Amino acid sequence: MTYETVLMERTEHIGIITLNRPEKLNTFNIPLGRDLNAALDELEGDQDIYVVVIRANGRVFSAGIDISDFPKKGILEYRPWIALMEKMTLTIAKMRKPVIAAVHGVAAANGAGLVAAADLAVATEGARFGLTAIDVGLFCMGPAVPMDRCVGKKHCLELLLTGDLIDARRAERMGLVNKVVPEDKLMEETLALAKKLAAKSPYALQMGKESYYTMADMPLEKALQYSNEMFCELCTLKDAEEGVRAFLEKRPPKWRLE
Amino acid sequence: MTYETVLMERTEHIGIITLNRPEKLNTFNIPLGRDLNAALDELEGDQDIYVVVIRANGRVFSAGIDISDFPKKGILEYRPWIALMEKMTLTIAKMRKPVIAAVHGVAAANGAGLVAAADLAVATEGARFGLTAIDVGLFCMGPAVPMDRCVGKKHCLELLLTGDLIDARRAERMGLVNKVVPEDKLMEETLALAKKLAAKSPYALQMGKESYYTMADMPLEKALQYSNEMFCELCTLKDAEEGVRAFLEKRPPKWRLE
Amino acid sequence: MTYETVLMERTEHIGIITLNRPEKLNTFNIPLGRDLNAALDELEGDQDIYVVVIRANGRVFSAGIDISDFPKKGILEYRPWIALMEKMTLTIAKMRKPVIAAVHGVAAANGAGLVAAADLAVATEGARFGLTAIDVGLFCMGPAVPMDRCVGKKHCLELLLTGDLIDARRAERMGLVNKVVPEDKLMEETLALAKKLAAKSPYALQMGKESYYTMADMPLEKALQYSNEMFCELCTLKDAEEGVRAFLEKRPPKWRLE
Repeated sequence: MTYETVLMERTEHIGIITLNRPEKLNTFNIPLGRDLNAALDELEGDQDIYVVVIRANGRVFSAGIDISDFPKKGILEYRPWIALMEKMTLTIAKMRKPVIAAVHGVAAANGAGLVAAADLAVATEGARFGLTAIDVGLFCMGPAVPMDRCVGKKHCLELLLTGDLIDARRAERMGLVNKVVPEDKLMEETLALAKKLAAKSPYALQMGKESYYTMADMPLEKALQYSNEMFCELCTLKDAEEGVRAFLEKRPPKWRLE
Repeated sequence: MTYETVLMERTEHIGIITLNRPEKLNTFNIPLGRDLNAALDELEGDQDIYVVVIRANGRVFSAGIDISDFPKKGILEYRPWIALMEKMTLTIAKMRKPVIAAVHGVAAANGAGLVAAADLAVATEGARFGLTAIDVGLFCMGPAVPMDRCVGKKHCLELLLTGDLIDARRAERMGLVNKVVPEDKLMEETLALAKKLAAKSPYALQMGKESYYTMADMPLEKALQYSNEMFCELCTLKDAEEGVRAFLEKRPPKWRLE
Repeated sequence: MTYETVLMERTEHIGIITLNRPEKLNTFNIPLGRDLNAALDELEGDQDIYVVVIRANGRVFSAGIDISDFPKKGILEYRPWIALMEKMTLTIAKMRKPVIAAVHGVAAANGAGLVAAADLAVATEGARFGLTAIDVGLFCMGPAVPMDRCVGKKHCLELLLTGDLIDARRAERMGLVNKVVPEDKLMEETLALAKKLAAKSPYALQMGKESYYTMADMPLEKALQYSNEMFCELCTLKDAEEGVRAFLEKRPPKWRLE
């Protein structure tokens, strides 16, 4: 498929989605929300893809929602648009393939929410992050949900209440970003990470991601029971047997392809 | 109103509560617990106040509970006093106006719990923090609740089990403190932060804070649904319309006053 | 009792469990899982022990599960073995005595899960940590549960998805380790920490630990109610009275022994 506002590439089992509204700072309007969700669904359904990267064209990753596009006629008009943003976070949490955000420039409001929703994030040294909606009389209620899972209460509230942009190093210390890289190494480093994941057993990665997000919402004892149940299931798969056998035979594993 | 153990000031929509039992290291007895809760309630109900600061007079922020005042006649005697400490954390979480703690000297036991309960915290370079009750045969069970929302499990248990005081830089790295400032800049920096928040739409701040604390207790999918419902509601307010319009017209917004 | 795969020592109210399969890098097989759980139960029941340390003999803390021992005959065979790993985390969370992990070399997979499950962790500068099961076609589903309580979402997923080992300094910044010490100071520093805890009121430590793990699974308001209920109960104990009295009389407390 081709999309209006995102580009799609596939390379070595990695699906790369590029936010492509650079002239609008990759702000989310209804087409971009729809396209990103559809692109994620497409890659989740593509058996040849093991890992997904989200990057952006232009000066910034995403400046948030496109408020020039903001409907002003009552709550019913906002709902479909806002529902797309909600769906984005849920899609990433529910899809079984790992999603890596590659961030440069600015990731603000829903742009920062997308980074928080991703499983992993790589950022350039100059990248900045903020939950900026407060400055236009709004509030990043939706982006706060994945953000609060990455950083603690004080950091999440600071981003929400001040609307300030923080730099990549602070985002890394807070737990929003996994790795900070030089400006010109963003895709090189992100693809190296994506290739590392793509070399793992896709079954293990996918059951593992499902297990993580499911247990993260459970109390300790239930989480342990559930996780161990999933682990027993994982142990019965061919890739588990092959992985262990390869390790014991000191040879690289050959994963069963889907 | 005037209070026995706290001072109240109002400046530029900021309510400043000063713990004022310096001769007792601002330890919490029943009057201080009552006064602080009442002062918070008063500011929450004052339509001219948008942001609340809690600071302290004397050498320290608060050394915890006043154990010289500690009743010793059985569990029924402790209950009203302990209930005031519980109420303090809940009051801050349930009030819709942001609360900033400005900390110098020492914040120990319930003093550290108050810092953790606050939405944001600024501390001096020399400030120290600890959940110290273990050293008198007690345990900071109540303060642990907001603390665990700010820092991870290992850090929370370290504070609880050792009773050690940690310095401001470590508190910042852990996520208990948002900003560390020189000794003589505490109120200047705290007021600058409070003024920044007071310049936002009070409606957005207040619905936003309510949304944050409510979703923080929910599993992911429910949290997203709830947060987006709240966001739809926020979008219908005049301040949202004005904020967006002002942004598009490149002029400062004029928030509707309460 | 004596065990096949762990050593037990007792010194100054501290119980020290040493993982002792050095020739197998202290990987967990059924005997080690059983022995560690039994040793923890034994120390929990020993009234003379106030604090527990888990350390390891040999080059590494634990390289995870012993996959050379891995049964390959279907899911029913895995269950008892996996159940032991699940029990380990739950045992530490449910036992009332604090558990400190002293880590050197490598703590991988269930070894890292054991570190995360511990209440506190001290590590050498050269220690490394990872959730490495992904590299053999498995996934650290069980270890992820305590890990997610120590570090944020992005860090937990990074460990899970990449299988990479991180160094002790990064583990400390993430919140997995409380203190990083020179190679030759591991037991000296760990025992100093254990002695500090052993000098506290055992009642306060034990009710406190129970309170922490119970409230950590509760929403805010319920957690506050529960914690304050527990605090009221703690206040009625002799050690609480003695601790407060000793503090007021400026003398060291004399805790009631069990």
